[in-house]
Amino acid sequence: MPKLEFWYDFASTYSYLAAMRIEALAAVAKVEIAYRPFLLGPIFKAQGLTTSPFVLNPAKGRYMARDIARIAAARGVVFHVPEPFPAHSLMAARIGMVAENEGWIGPFTRAVFAAEFADKADIAAPDTLSRLVAGLGHDPARVMARAGSDELRLALRTRTEAAAEKGIFGAPTFLTEDGEIFWGDDRLEAALSWVRTSRAPG
Amino acid sequence: MPKLEFWYDFASTYSYLAAMRIEALAAVAKVEIAYRPFLLGPIFKAQGLTTSPFVLNPAKGRYMARDIARIAAARGVVFHVPEPFPAHSLMAARIGMVAENEGWIGPFTRAVFAAEFADKADIAAPDTLSRLVAGLGHDPARVMARAGSDELRLALRTRTEAAAEKGIFGAPTFLTEDGEIFWGDDRLEAALSWVRTSRAPG
Repeated sequence: MPKLEFWYDFASTYSYLAAMRIEALAAVAKVEIAYRPFLLGPIFKAQGLTTSPFVLNPAKGRYMARDIARIAAARGVVFHVPEPFPAHSLMAARIGMVAENEGWIGPFTRAVFAAEFADKADIAAPDTLSRLVAGLGHDPARVMARAGSDELRLALRTRTEAAAEKGIFGAPTFLTEDGEIFWGDDRLEAALSWVRTSRAPG
Repeated sequence: MPKLEFWYDFASTYSYLAAMRIEALAAVAKVEIAYRPFLLGPIFKAQGLTTSPFVLNPAKGRYMARDIARIAAARGVVFHVPEPFPAHSLMAARIGMVAENEGWIGPFTRAVFAAEFADKADIAAPDTLSRLVAGLGHDPARVMARAGSDELRLALRTRTEAAAEKGIFGAPTFLTEDGEIFWGDDRLEAALSWVRTSRAPG
């Protein structure tokens, strides 16, 4: 099955929109999704930004909230802007690296995004993350210990450096096996279509 | 007929995409398009940017060129990134204010965008603009004189200030009569749909 990489930060609002629909769209497109959690912070920092563009540019931030509210309403999805915004997503991303290694990254990703943007939970709080991990049937103590290990810290750093090297500058980003980049929830259909049609039918 | 304002800068690549299809979509949606040329430069300057984000952020600039090339190919539209980029759009915008006042802003807008992004013409060159104005059946000498008048310079400055006041931070932006903002060529359908459905059918 052809593959599409889904690069996202757990603090990213438009990544939430994409995460909640990507599996349904990928299933009918017969495309496999490879989850690639990373951190936008270092990417923004390299661009000279100290925080999210939605904070630095208030008009853009107000627009983002309204744009997503309209889209979420049309899709029947709940959406709240978290407080504080953006959420501190480092710990969720580290657990995401564990989940990716162990094969439960899809459900974990949806659980984190739903907690953050639908249920107003604080995803920087260890309690929240432990609850989500336990809810997926994993031992929070073991997972949290592994997420805090040097190995996983390094893996997340390497992942984020790889994002920059691939030309990723925002999230969500969809990356095809032949190197095409699609940026934004609104490019998900185009990315899936590219993956489907740049190969022989089958 | 319900109305939708189309705010754009003649140097804006995604505004080109929108300008070349907005009349066809608006016709079937039975929505009237009000053309609102303005300058992105002062908007970017107020955000602390010295030029286009696509120049300041090379990864984003490369992505924009590829994203538009894919979309243009799918629509059967020619697209070249102008050199230099972004084009200097001040004179085109001033003539746009004349054209808006005199009722030929739609054809003028399409002529400028096609010259710039399809025909590799320099829209900062008076010769180019004179040729385009003449091609629409207007006297270039008269139009250029009016475009350089204090009245039109002030009108363009006021227009650009109005853009900032309305919360516009990029282009193209679609503004509904009830104050909804839609940003980007990829939101044109949503903007037209909003205008259609927020009113009684008719």
